[in-house]
Amino acid sequence: MSEHVEPPICVLGLGLIGGSLLRAAVAAGRTAWGYNRSADPVRDAVADGFDATSDLRSALVRAREGNALIVVAVPMPAVDAVLAAVAEHAPGCPLTDVVSVKAPVAAAVARVGLTERYVGGHPMAGTADSGWGASFAELFNDAVWVVAAEDGADPAVWSAVTRLALACGSVVIPAESNEHDRAVARISHLPHVLAEALATSGAAGGDLALGLAAGSFRDGTRVAATAPDLVRAMCEANADALLDALDETLAVLAAARETLAAGSLADLVGAGFDARQRYEKAERWDITGIVPGDIGWLEAFRDAGRRGGALRAL
Amino acid sequence: MSEHVEPPICVLGLGLIGGSLLRAAVAAGRTAWGYNRSADPVRDAVADGFDATSDLRSALVRAREGNALIVVAVPMPAVDAVLAAVAEHAPGCPLTDVVSVKAPVAAAVARVGLTERYVGGHPMAGTADSGWGASFAELFNDAVWVVAAEDGADPAVWSAVTRLALACGSVVIPAESNEHDRAVARISHLPHVLAEALATSGAAGGDLALGLAAGSFRDGTRVAATAPDLVRAMCEANADALLDALDETLAVLAAARETLAAGSLADLVGAGFDARQRYEKAERWDITGIVPGDIGWLEAFRDAGRRGGALRAL
Repeated sequence: MSEHVEPPICVLGLGLIGGSLLRAAVAAGRTAWGYNRSADPVRDAVADGFDATSDLRSALVRAREGNALIVVAVPMPAVDAVLAAVAEHAPGCPLTDVVSVKAPVAAAVARVGLTERYVGGHPMAGTADSGWGASFAELFNDAVWVVAAEDGADPAVWSAVTRLALACGSVVIPAESNEHDRAVARISHLPHVLAEALATSGAAGGDLALGLAAGSFRDGTRVAATAPDLVRAMCEANADALLDALDETLAVLAAARETLAAGSLADLVGAGFDARQRYEKAERWDITGIVPGDIGWLEAFRDAGRRGGALRAL
Repeated sequence: MSEHVEPPICVLGLGLIGGSLLRAAVAAGRTAWGYNRSADPVRDAVADGFDATSDLRSALVRAREGNALIVVAVPMPAVDAVLAAVAEHAPGCPLTDVVSVKAPVAAAVARVGLTERYVGGHPMAGTADSGWGASFAELFNDAVWVVAAEDGADPAVWSAVTRLALACGSVVIPAESNEHDRAVARISHLPHVLAEALATSGAAGGDLALGLAAGSFRDGTRVAATAPDLVRAMCEANADALLDALDETLAVLAAARETLAAGSLADLVGAGFDARQRYEKAERWDITGIVPGDIGWLEAFRDAGRRGGALRAL
């Protein structure tokens, strides 16, 4: 591989993810600065020794001058406003994001005409806490970081985003945005919906039911303890894919209901057991030998991601 | 309280629960013996120093002669046959069981005319393993043991069953059989059904989805790793109550689906979060001052169980 000059990093939004990213980028030796709309996180970040501002324009002018990789790290409802500022002040910079849903962000990027320099990302890491105060550089260690592999992606931007994720300690799984959104609907958003429903059913049984609850209920409802605003933001931003996953599950449960009424849960239990075994035995393998920019590189990365591969180096 | 002469214990079935009960009863100083239909567990129990036989008749004749408390610890499909033998050889003995569903066992007991001397039980303890080899005396330590509080229950039998549960290290929650079955449908059987459905949905997303799965999926599908036969036996034996709980949950999920299609998951997420908070904050309190046999004792115990109380002593 040739030697790369890694771009500086401009992080827009200093919450748990953006704050941790600023810390991780600096820890990895990058020049990096952050912007946050509200002043308190900026003051705290500066007090912690980081380069941060609440002046979006100045953060972006600096990005333009240094050709920084801009990372959008604000919640979905704030994405449009931040992208409009990027389009105004730094339209030529490489651009990525760390929002938990990819197709809606890609659509917002397209609306401001920045698709050419954009490659979406999603580090699958988090804690129950939020804000700069909860951020830490090691949040992304050994996490999975999805990097969007859309047709037309710029190989240089794709490589820069991937190298940032790797520098933060994550492995990179390449995936097309819609495939990512459908996958996380199944394995992240649907679990939250089912946990909320299960918790509701348990509480409807009153103190007797809650008093008898043991491990299966405790584990099955754990994520229902997540702050409601976070769960809503995550699920509602991915509503289309989540509706598909939920409809599929409603059909599976309705079919199980009919077999149970006839005396058997064999089909559901057999399928569920096999599925969990497949999950437990799934092994991530290393993607190697695919070079961004080579003919067919995006399809090759997408195919590798679909088959359980991940990049540990680029 | 007056001094009690504790009855000997005759355990019918030496699997995980029955075997552990035999061990715990002996550890608590009781005279106890066990029966198992297949010879291997009997041989192993004897080798471990316990009194065990594969001759059901002799075990029951001995129970009759010593007025033992008989504990039915066989799986639901074997309950009828074992109860028929009890009715033939030891119809006057106090009788309980440790099966995970209560109304169907009570119905089976009624069919052989043993209701008068029967008080059902359900120690809510278990492991992923089964059989005598997996049994251990401490299985019931700090577990919840439901003791059925049906109208007409014999106070002496009720007390004997409760004292056995307490001697094994459990706390006792009194509950009417149907209420127990409905409660465990919500907090034990429904979690299994939802875990199976969630696992199925994740695997349907292929290696990409399974590769992105993190904590919410792992916890939400944990009990889908349980042996399918055990899940089926548990859920199918409690089909009526589980169908009610499942229908209720299907309605909750269908309503959430409609609000999500309109852009919001607020109702589901709010209710689920509140329910999980209620579960986390639920505190068991000690039932005291209710004496078996006093006027209204069963209703008083049932009411206390409904309100989250448990017996730690009798």
